[in-house]
This record gives sequence, C-alpha cells and structure tokens, in this order.
Amino acid sequence: MRQKRTESPSETASRRKFLSLGAAVGGALTACAEPQEVVEEAPKRLGRAPDKYGERSPFERSSRLGRASKNPETGSTRSPLQDFHGIITPSSLHFERHHAGVPEIDPAKHRLMIHGMVKRPLVLTVDEIKTLPSVSRVHFIECSGNSRGEWTDRKGPTAQHSHGLASCSEWTGVLLSILLDEAGVNPEAHWLIAEGADACKMHRSLPLDKCRDDVIVAYGQNGEAIRPEQGYPLRLVVPGFEGNINVKWLRRLMLSGQPAMGREETSKYTDLLADGKARQFSFTMEAKSVITRPSGGQKLAREGFHEIAGLAWSGRGVIERVEVSTDDGNTWQDAELQEPRHRIAFTRFRLPWTWDGAETVILSRATDDTGYVQPTEQALIAARGHNSDYHNNCIKAWKIGADGNVTHV
Amino acid sequence: MRQKRTESPSETASRRKFLSLGAAVGGALTACAEPQEVVEEAPKRLGRAPDKYGERSPFERSSRLGRASKNPETGSTRSPLQDFHGIITPSSLHFERHHAGVPEIDPAKHRLMIHGMVKRPLVLTVDEIKTLPSVSRVHFIECSGNSRGEWTDRKGPTAQHSHGLASCSEWTGVLLSILLDEAGVNPEAHWLIAEGADACKMHRSLPLDKCRDDVIVAYGQNGEAIRPEQGYPLRLVVPGFEGNINVKWLRRLMLSGQPAMGREETSKYTDLLADGKARQFSFTMEAKSVITRPSGGQKLAREGFHEIAGLAWSGRGVIERVEVSTDDGNTWQDAELQEPRHRIAFTRFRLPWTWDGAETVILSRATDDTGYVQPTEQALIAARGHNSDYHNNCIKAWKIGADGNVTHV
Repeated sequence: MRQKRTESPSETASRRKFLSLGAAVGGALTACAEPQEVVEEAPKRLGRAPDKYGERSPFERSSRLGRASKNPETGSTRSPLQDFHGIITPSSLHFERHHAGVPEIDPAKHRLMIHGMVKRPLVLTVDEIKTLPSVSRVHFIECSGNSRGEWTDRKGPTAQHSHGLASCSEWTGVLLSILLDEAGVNPEAHWLIAEGADACKMHRSLPLDKCRDDVIVAYGQNGEAIRPEQGYPLRLVVPGFEGNINVKWLRRLMLSGQPAMGREETSKYTDLLADGKARQFSFTMEAKSVITRPSGGQKLAREGFHEIAGLAWSGRGVIERVEVSTDDGNTWQDAELQEPRHRIAFTRFRLPWTWDGAETVILSRATDDTGYVQPTEQALIAARGHNSDYHNNCIKAWKIGADGNVTHV
Repeated sequence: MRQKRTESPSETASRRKFLSLGAAVGGALTACAEPQEVVEEAPKRLGRAPDKYGERSPFERSSRLGRASKNPETGSTRSPLQDFHGIITPSSLHFERHHAGVPEIDPAKHRLMIHGMVKRPLVLTVDEIKTLPSVSRVHFIECSGNSRGEWTDRKGPTAQHSHGLASCSEWTGVLLSILLDEAGVNPEAHWLIAEGADACKMHRSLPLDKCRDDVIVAYGQNGEAIRPEQGYPLRLVVPGFEGNINVKWLRRLMLSGQPAMGREETSKYTDLLADGKARQFSFTMEAKSVITRPSGGQKLAREGFHEIAGLAWSGRGVIERVEVSTDDGNTWQDAELQEPRHRIAFTRFRLPWTWDGAETVILSRATDDTGYVQPTEQALIAARGHNSDYHNNCIKAWKIGADGNVTHV
C-alpha cells in the first residue's frame, strides 16, 4: 500500500485552523438538493486537437504592466504577482528591465569570452557551455528599483505596481566558479566585469568572492531555454544581488583588479542617503514580503473565510518566518510557509482568515535565516532618508474597506 | 557578509570528480591569445521593446511530438525530455493525451459538482474554490501507456519517443480532502468517480483513501492558470497515479460504494498478463528513469568530458538513488541528485563522464524511498509477459557508436 504523506507541523496547524472555521467556509459553499440542475452540460462536440507548443486559455488575460514611453527600449514591465500561484513565475510573465531593448541573438553565433587577468583566455560557444557540469536552482531576481514608489506618495495601487519588478524561476547552467577555474584567475584579480550583448553593452562589476560562490552562467529557465527578454542565450544569475547585475545576453567576463565604475554603478544603482553621501555596490536584496491576495485592486466578495496568501524572499538565504497582521499591526500570526523552501527564492506564505466585514489593514513581515526582519517604512526612512530610491524593502500594508475593496494605505 | 552556500555531499563529490577531469575538460574549451578577434561585436541597434506576455526565441524549435491521425482529438503528444533542463516541464511542452479533444471552457460558467453518497451535495464555482486553503506541490504526471513501445521491437529512437508521456509541474489548488469534509462523505462510500467536461465525459474511479490523502483539485500550473490541454480551469491531480486518472476539465465528483467500471478502467488501462488475466486498478506509476543527455538522436561531438544527465521519478515517493552504467551494466556509479528532491516529482540526476571514443552502452537505474529498484527489461517481462502494454518502467539503454551517434539498443 501507498505511504501516507506526512503533514509538516505548519500544514497541520493551518489545516486545524481551517477546519475550525467550518461554519464560515460552509457559508461560502452552495449546498444544493438537485445538483444536476445547476451544472451546465459538458459540451457534446469534439474539442481541438493536440498541438506542438501550447498557449494559455484565451480567457486568461494576466499580463506584464509597462508604462507608455517614447523610449520603451529602456523601460520595464512588472509581473502580475497578484495572479500567481506557488513560487514559479511563468516565463512569459517574468518582469523585464532593459537598457537598449531585447536583442535577437542566434545562439549558434553567440560566444562568451573570459579574459583580462587570467592565465588562459577562453572563448566558449553555447554548446560547449552546455556540455559542462550543470546545476538547476530556484532563485528570485529583483530589480533594486522595485517598490521605488513606496518612498514617495506615489505608492503602488496593486501588488504588480508596488512589487512587480521581482520574479522567480528555476535557472539551469554552469557554475561560474568552474569557468573561472578553467581560465585560471590571476592573484591580482579582485573583480569581474560582466558585459551583455545589448546595444549599450550594459555591464556591471562583481566582487570575485561572490563569483566563486554561487553565480551561474545560465542557459535554462523553467525547463526550457532562457527567454529572449531574460538574456537568451546566456544570462549571469547572481543569487540575491540586485537584478541589474544579473547581466543578460552575456558575452564577456573580464577579470580585473578594480571595478569598471560604469554608468550603472555610479550614476545609477547607487543609493543617495540623507547626508548627501551614497551607498555604492549595495548589491544584496534584503528580506521582503508582500500579500498578493487580497491585495490592491481586488475585492472581497463576502464576509467569512478567505485565505491570505503572498510571497516572501531574501537575498541572504532562506525565509524562516512570515508574520501576518489583520489588525493594522496590533497583533501578528505566523503564516504557513510552503515547503520545501529554497535559498534565495520566492517562498509562498498562507494564512486562513475569517473576515468580519469591518474595515481593517493587513500587513506581512518576513524574517530570513540570518535573523534579519523586514523593516517598517518608518525604520527604513530613519536609516536611509527619502532619497535612497533603490532597495526599498519595507512592510507593505493593504486596507480592506467595509465594502470589501482593497486599496493601498 | 553573505553566507556561503553549503554544498551537499553529492554536489561535492560531483565537483571533485569534475575537477579531476581537468585535462579532459580543458580539451573542450578553446583558449585563445586574442579573444576579441573571435567574438562578434554586440549589435549596435536598439532591440525590441518589452511586451505583455513573452514568447520563446524564434531560434528555439523544441516541440511536442504527435502521430498523424484521422482522429487527432483522441491522440497524444510527447514531451521533448531530451531538451529539458532542471525538473520543471515548460507548460507549453507538457505532454498531452486527449479522448475527445481540448474543450474551450469559460471559467466563469464552469462548475464543480460533488454529489452521490454525501450529506451535503455541493456545486462550486472556480472563484469559490480559489478562496479555500491552497497548496502548491511539484508532481510528475505520467501516462501509463508511456514507454509502451518498449515491450515490443518498436522501441523509441529518442527519449521523447520512448519516455515523452511524462511531465512535471508545480500544481496549485485545494486538497480534495477539504472538499470531501465540506460535503460530508457517507460511511458507505468507498470510491469517488471523477468526470471531465470533455465531449466523452471521460471518467475514472479512485479509492477513497487516496482521495483523503494527497489529491489536489488544481487550478494552477507553474504559477499561472492550468493550460487548456491540461484541464483548464480545473484538474484532479492524483500524485503518483497513472495520468488518465488525473481527470482534466473536472466537472463532477460522485461518491459511490463501487467503482464506475467505465471504459477507461475495463476495456482500457488494464494490464493483460501472460496467463490471460488482467491487472485492474493498477494505479501507481513505479520508479523509473531515463538518460536524456546523451540520448537517442543526439551525437557526441568529441571524445573527452561530457555530463550524463537525466530524469528519475516514482509514484511511491522520493527518488533516493540513481545509478548510471557507462559500460553496458557491468559497473554502476551513483549519479548526483538535484536537491531539493520533491516527493512524486521529476528528480534530475547528473554524472560527469569522460568518453574514450569507443562504442558503449549507457543505462540508468532508479531506486525510491520504499526501496523499490527499477527493473531490467527481462525482469519486467518475466513478471508481466509481453502483452501488459501499460506500466512499462524498465531500464532504458542507449548505445553510443564510435562515431558519437546515440541510438536505441
């Protein structure tokens, strides 16, 4: 006989909580004496035949959200986090941020060059890279400009607006450390400068100790080739570091004694503090979370049972805890965390909840395995001022009106 | 400072093996004195703007494989396992098996009815189901007719032909046990009959103890809505049971004292044994594995380093071990297993290998956490004869020719 699956303690707790809400849930479900009468007959005609590469249902309209612009090639689109299930972001809905548009690259012609302070410069084809030892790991990527509007009065009205520059995929590729070992890094090298094959040759500098740790030269995303807007055919996946440094359309890795001090690490992607100084090379994306259901723009159809669900992540490691408040921060409850929890990946949290129909505010607060706790807006502003612009990871609040409408506070 | 990621013992072993192959790998990578000269310049023109719902690169042609037929609506397509990375099957390439084509269903009109031997018949909308407590779990689904040709001389020339009726997704939905508790199952009920909304009303019978365990009424697949060909808007996901019982376009769950004895569990999906008797309700998909790279139809470009990679799965639980032989079964080595390993899910295995250029045969053998070991073809035939047709999980062999061509043995 089959083995029973063992529930985790948090799953048992969640289930117990739900079952104690029986009456509330029961109210949501329609009992009926003659069920056949209210169910449409199944169609009597044959459906369509199988096909080679499937598409989603025409009834599904969830889409990335961009801003109208004269120069869309330097723009971004945001992921519809409020529509997602689980922890994998559908590749078609992964957020975008481009500096010179999406180049169309023939993988047969593409090369990756490793040079500079190395013993043995290398030029690799994509096929050569695919023969090397590979890893697949689930990681989020988040633009450090995500939630930028939260520093201001222009706060995001939906989870997509406020947190949609973050997505999570299963990435596959070769560890950068293997390629560096093959090239033979000279002892005077301390930085690696990664350059993309877009028209602006977007490039960023990474400290070498990170490169030797967990950085992946990736060619796979969610089982298939990386999508064009995510860097096809090669992307540098730098777990936990700000999105911009996860260089797309990767063509060049130069070992160097110094960082490049390029545009994207001086004029941009530095964090201006209240005293006029700036944080530079502020790579790591700190612990963060957002409730995606219910979230801004949605409406609770009725009083009674609802599942509160959302996403949490940390660039430093594993999400250890997510607390949810349904009374504007007066009290907090531990949400259930979806297992297994991957390092530096979206973690799904869920909490059963009975809404009494009164106006309230709901919030979530993540803690990672370094003990770091997601800060309040006030704490973040106290530390960084109002001009920091990048790296906003403060607690996000949603107001639920007596009419069930969910809005930004 | 950031914490270093801790390698698992199997990762360390794999890395050590690879590094000891240094010379072999070095031979695969092109060192060059003037790398700039051999690398194409990046494009100088802006790429395309972001868009709402992304597509794969036009250079990518991997596709599902079907057979020409007068009645394609009753056919199947196979997943290109040889092209996949990691453990997630891209939804667009998930295998298909239909009995009356893919119906187009408006989720706003769709209902799920739960009736029969219950205290409180229920009719649920998709939105009502989405408000209930949810789970997301990674599970494979495999048609029990997968690898059917392996009983015969018509063995699959590629991994797609021989093993492509299996795929793996992150499924999201509500546990069936919650819905059954809401409906209140009568003590005389022992079976659940699940019916789809396709034109043939495809239906199957499940034992009630399985329904109370880990079965999911799923609406999400890999982060977004289930794809039409996987059952949009609702599918019964029955972890580890043959694909056919994972009823798509789910519209009806009837509690009953007896199984339905429908066409798909009498005339079809029973396993004819050598003595003329048949196995019926042979639900579970046993442990199985296949090497996907190198696999039939591929060619090793050169002697030296190659990574052997593949997929293993078991309907009974977790894959504990995959052994690989590169000498036609004379000796076996443990492959590295990709962590974390999910229960009843694809598990990726990898083994570094130096090919000496001589003709050989490679094989893989999976063991699950019940101790079950994937059988040889001879052992399977001894137990089930030649007419069993369904549930072929024997060890698959690939021959590598001296010219590098990989073919079925």
